Parts: sequence; C-alpha cells; structure tokens
Amino acid sequence: MVKFENYEFVDGGVCAAEGFTAGGVIAGIKTGNTTKRDLAMIYCAERCKTAALFTSNKVKGAPIIVSKEHLKDGYAQAVIVNSGNANTCNPDGIEIAEEMCELTAQALDIDADDVLVGSTGVIGQKLDIKPIRIMIPTLAKSLSTKNCGDAVEAIMTTDTRKKEIAVEFDLDGRKCHVGGISKGSGMINPNMATMLAFITTDVAIARELLEKALRKVNYLTYNMVSVDGDTSTNDTLILMSSGLAKNSEIICEDKNYEIFENALYAVMMNLARETARDGEGATKLIECIVTGAPSEKAARAAAKSVISSNLVKAALFAADANWGRILCALGYADADFDIEKVSVELASSKGKLTVCAEGAGIAFSEETAAEILSEDEVKILVDLRDGEYSAIAWGCDLTFDYVKINAEYRT
Amino acid sequence: MVKFENYEFVDGGVCAAEGFTAGGVIAGIKTGNTTKRDLAMIYCAERCKTAALFTSNKVKGAPIIVSKEHLKDGYAQAVIVNSGNANTCNPDGIEIAEEMCELTAQALDIDADDVLVGSTGVIGQKLDIKPIRIMIPTLAKSLSTKNCGDAVEAIMTTDTRKKEIAVEFDLDGRKCHVGGISKGSGMINPNMATMLAFITTDVAIARELLEKALRKVNYLTYNMVSVDGDTSTNDTLILMSSGLAKNSEIICEDKNYEIFENALYAVMMNLARETARDGEGATKLIECIVTGAPSEKAARAAAKSVISSNLVKAALFAADANWGRILCALGYADADFDIEKVSVELASSKGKLTVCAEGAGIAFSEETAAEILSEDEVKILVDLRDGEYSAIAWGCDLTFDYVKINAEYRT
Repeated sequence: MVKFENYEFVDGGVCAAEGFTAGGVIAGIKTGNTTKRDLAMIYCAERCKTAALFTSNKVKGAPIIVSKEHLKDGYAQAVIVNSGNANTCNPDGIEIAEEMCELTAQALDIDADDVLVGSTGVIGQKLDIKPIRIMIPTLAKSLSTKNCGDAVEAIMTTDTRKKEIAVEFDLDGRKCHVGGISKGSGMINPNMATMLAFITTDVAIARELLEKALRKVNYLTYNMVSVDGDTSTNDTLILMSSGLAKNSEIICEDKNYEIFENALYAVMMNLARETARDGEGATKLIECIVTGAPSEKAARAAAKSVISSNLVKAALFAADANWGRILCALGYADADFDIEKVSVELASSKGKLTVCAEGAGIAFSEETAAEILSEDEVKILVDLRDGEYSAIAWGCDLTFDYVKINAEYRT
Repeated sequence: MVKFENYEFVDGGVCAAEGFTAGGVIAGIKTGNTTKRDLAMIYCAERCKTAALFTSNKVKGAPIIVSKEHLKDGYAQAVIVNSGNANTCNPDGIEIAEEMCELTAQALDIDADDVLVGSTGVIGQKLDIKPIRIMIPTLAKSLSTKNCGDAVEAIMTTDTRKKEIAVEFDLDGRKCHVGGISKGSGMINPNMATMLAFITTDVAIARELLEKALRKVNYLTYNMVSVDGDTSTNDTLILMSSGLAKNSEIICEDKNYEIFENALYAVMMNLARETARDGEGATKLIECIVTGAPSEKAARAAAKSVISSNLVKAALFAADANWGRILCALGYADADFDIEKVSVELASSKGKLTVCAEGAGIAFSEETAAEILSEDEVKILVDLRDGEYSAIAWGCDLTFDYVKINAEYRT
C-alpha cells in the first residue's frame, strides 16, 4: 500500500470524526474491582454505515452472535462494550448481550438493532447484568467528544497502554477524520479480525467500499500481529461511518477512496502495532519485514512465522542475536522459497547489522548486536532474494511476565 | 492402535536388541564444557536394514543431508552423534558431517556410507571437528552393551532426563527386542520426525515394512508432541534392524508385523511422552485425549491445538482450571466439529472432573480442580460427541523456566 503524506495525526480518538461521542464508567463487573472503568459506549448522532469483522474461532462469544444479527442491515448507531468478562460459553450469554443492547437503546432513544455489543475478559463465567443495568443510563449521560480516553480505559484488560489514535485529512476541501481505539494484549493472533477495535469516520462512502477498505486494511495490519498464537473467541473490529464530513460520497475506487484507505491504514496499522508492543509481559515490539518473496502468501507466512516463534521471542527478550532461530522459523513457515539465498539483518534506532547471508552465519560483533537488540523497538529484516513480494508482521518478546500474567489471570 | 500386552519393558535401551553396542564420551565440543558427555556412537555387528525420517523444516542441518545420502541403499551399521552444536547453517557443515562419518568408519572398520550422523545444539556456529577427531577412536573402543546410558547423556542438550527404553517380546518362539534413546526438550514440534531418536531392533523384517511401521508409529507418537511449536532444523528419527533375533523374516502385514508395530509403538510413545514431560522448563506432562471426532484429522488437530496453546500451558503451570482457554484452542483448531456438543474433563491420579458440557461451563469445585491439576501428569479429556475418531497429543506447561532457558541458551 502506498503511504500518502496527506493526513496528520490529531487528538480525540473515536471522537475525532464528526458526530461521535464516547464515554467509560466503573460498573464493577469483575467482582471486587471497582478501581478501573469497565463499561464503554460509543455513540453517533446519525445512523452509520457500518462494516465489521469478527473472530474466525468456532467458539464465538455471545456478543459476536448478537452484533452480527444487528449488523444485517449494514447500519449501527452505538456500541456498548464491557471488560472483565467475555460473556462467552455461557448458557444465557445471548440474552445478556441482547439486554445490553436494549438498555443502551433505551438510554440513547435509538433502535436496539442499531446497537452493537462487545465483551472481553474471562471466558466461561456468567456475566452479571446487574451492574451494567445500573450504570448504562449514567454512561449514556456521560457521553462527550472529550471522553474517548475513558472509553479506552474501560475496554482494557491486561493492557498496560491506552491504544487510541486519529488522523485528519482533506477530501473535496472538507476536513475528514478516521479515529480508533483498540484493546488486546494476550490471546492475540487475529485471523480476519482482532481482539476489540472500534474505528469511526465521518467520510461519506458507499457501504460496500467501507467494507472493502476494512477487509483490505485488516489483512495488512491486525492479521499480521501475533502475541501468543491464540486466536480469541471475541475478536471484533467495527468501522462506523457517519458521513458528516459532507464530502461527495465515495462510490468507486477513485483517488478519494485511496486517500480514505490510506488514512484507515494509518489508524489501524498504528493500533495493531501498539497491540503487539503491549503484548502481555512484553518489553519490546518486534517488527519483521520480509522482502524479496516469491509471492505475497510466502512473504506473509515468513514474516508471521518469525514473530510467532517462542524461541525467537525468548532470545529477543535477552537481546540475544540468535539468528539461527530466525532461520529455523523461516524454514518451517508454510511458504516456498530458497533458504540458501536468505539474508537477515537486525535493526533498531541503535543501528543495523547483517547476521546471516545466503542462509549461513557471517561474523559480526555480539556487542553491537546486543546493543541494537536492547532497544524497545527492534526490526528483523529478512530478504529472501527470491522474488518481489513483501510483508510486515508485528509481535513482541516472550518474557517471565507473560507466564506470570497468564498463570494468574483467572484467579 | 490396539495395545497388545505381549511385551515387557527391559533394560538396555538401544543395546537391548541383539547385535547393538553403544557409548558416549566427553569431547568438549561446546567450548569450556568438559563436564558432560557430548559425543555418542551406536554400532551394530551386522549391517542393518534402516528406515529414517527427517525434519520437514526447509532449513536442514548438514548431518541430515549427509545421512539421507548415506541411507540411499537402505542400510546402515553405525550412528555418530554430537551435542553442543547443530552443525546447521554453516558453510562447511557438510564436509564436517562427512568427516565425522569417515572417522567413525575408520575406527569401526566399516564403510563410511554405512554411518549416519546427527548433531544437536546451537544453529549457525562452526562445529570444530578437532575434539571429535581426537575422541572418535576412544569412543569406538568404549562401545559396549552396557553403555547405552553414556550415549543418552551424550546426546542431551537442555534435557533434564535421560530418555531410554526397551521392550522384549516373542516372535516364533524367539526373544525379540525394540529399544530406543531420544533427546529433545526445546524446539519441539516434530513434523514427520523428531529431534533426535535412535531406535534399534533385532527383529528380522523386510525394509519396506520397517519403514512403513516407522512412519505409522511416528505419526501417532512424535508427531503428536509439541513443546513450543518450533520445528527444529535437525529432527532425526532412525530405526535400525539387525535381524539377529532370527525370527522368520516378517514379509507381510501379518500377526507378527502387528506385534512388532505395537512394540515399536510402546517404545516410541514412551520416548515421545518423556520428551513432552521434559519440555524446557516444564513442571508437568499434559496429555490431551480427544474422542468423538468426525475424522482422524479433526481429532489430531484438536488434540494438538490444546497442548500447543501458550495460554492453556500457562494456566496449567498455575494448576488453574481455565477451561475457557481449552475451548478457545479447540475453536481455532483446523478441524470441523460442532463446538456446542463439546465436553471437557480434567484428570490426574487425584481424580477426574467435568468442567464443560455442551460447549458451556458447568459448576465445579475450584479446589478439587486445583488438586487434580497440581499433579505432575495431567490429562485433558475432550469429547467432541460428533463422530468416532480419536487422537492423543502430549505437551507440557509453559513456565518461567522456559523463558529463562531460552533467553539464556546461546550465551
């Protein structure tokens, strides 16, 4: 995808786009936890053309089943999301997800079919609707263009960083926006979608093109992220368009469509990247850039195999230039290429170092390598020298804290 | 596979089978390490019909390339193996692997084409042939039917347990044997083979049937083990038959073939299981038994997905009955079945507990669950209630020590 430089980053997250407000409150959904916001709402003054992607896991959270049903007409006006409980694998999960939509619709005076719902947290424990029932009216009253930060906080689980971003750009002389928030830290190996991500825009665009852009950009961003190889049951990615920027509606894949798609890429790529950086227990972001691949499929498989390897991840935690593990991970990727042509470079803000050429090791300074790898953003540059395709994937290191977090998460 | 009870476990490992001797010495291959044996040899008084499986990784260690070449005629008489260096991704790896075979052949007065070679350890560092050259004659002289233990020690890397086993059984009134040794603790996700495993037998059997049995049993054992999802570059599984039991040669898939295959299963299943138990940093063996699957493929994919999930593995380290993660892992397995029929039980020597029925949680005592899961062998019993196929897979928990070992391994 060509990057256009015709957008700039702005504040506001999902509220940067015209028409949208958001909020987040403390409902106390996870028993005993009343210190963190856990219930979020996003609302638009207009019904929005909406596209969405959901998990490919056969186990689907109840909120996903309900949201899919509500999205059948392609429109939505609000999103209600809780953290602290995934509302998944519960006998009455669907009723509870439906009630969350109905309560939201009442509070906002809109149609319940125009409300989408998301839940994240522990799987297989009953979600208590009572605290949600009590807090939804308060939450609806708190909605504001200033409160995106509260909404982000409310959707976080083991996340340590708020993932929020927005861009502004011009279409037909109108100021347009794409903004988004995202959560996700563990159980991250999206496949057709991500953990939870809510993207808004005020760009007027045909619904088919909205969906097309979402699919394409998701393919290049969230689907190229892995924290632990576990594809969640609740992955949800929603893109709502208010059309309030009042540009002439995008109805074909013209220059304006391209500008919109690139703005969407800027938002989703940054959110996806931050999801990898904030991987459970992670101390560093790993970006693997594969070039010279014989096909797009090979490039993607190779990049994703490297950032998914537990052994590569553990070596990078120790800032150890163990490139043999990188080659090993390339070797078992589901991709055809000639391993004897491969070169590997390690890079960060501290410099760049070739560690492997033509599939074999070359002499390098271990000290320089350790210095490069000690940074909190590290790049693995793989040139397959076997074609013209490329791909980027994002992951993080595997640390003691990943184990600690996941050995203790439920209890 | 039906288990016959007509074999018994005996001592001797690879030396239990008639004609085989073994040994292991300290060569000091990994610089500075002179406290652990690191060079092993297995020898047979007769040329052996030999079958082998090697890694499916596109990056193949030099020893694998050489062993494949030497096995073209289907015969071998000795195996030379070093630990401490994988002799992989080195410009002169093949010459070094060839020289290891030639030195062994000279010391044993056999043909170099009848020597197979294996290496395990760090990838991409030059293997120094000098200490090997010096010690091979000493090693050849040390060969004995009593020294299988030294050979096992010499092939270990991060292994904490010696993996050695043998069985005895009757064919045509003759005492027959299958014995084996194996190493492997990390980079364990065999696909068509395992890390290093050497199996010997004195059963007289046609070479095609030897190979057929090896493939089938490998499919059911080593290929159902995962420690970390990383398929090694050096996976090697070798089965040598001396024929010295003097049974009438097995030339078709008769009752005797079945007895042999089951003895081979007993040996390889136990070695594979011990490989999972000894996974890097592991505190427990996890056995996932999937029944009621609509196909063999579905059963295998489901079982392997559960034991491979980092999140399931971390939960079991904490003895946490987080069955939602088990369902999640089933849900993203590459297998079709109806998730709403699934039941999950947890079991160990402390008892058995149903934690999920019809795809949803049921009430259970967390204390009982924790007691069951605190054992060092834990079973996850998944019934898909969607067919008649079953599979077993073996893995281990994910612990702080896995990260520690792999963050420090190379340095």
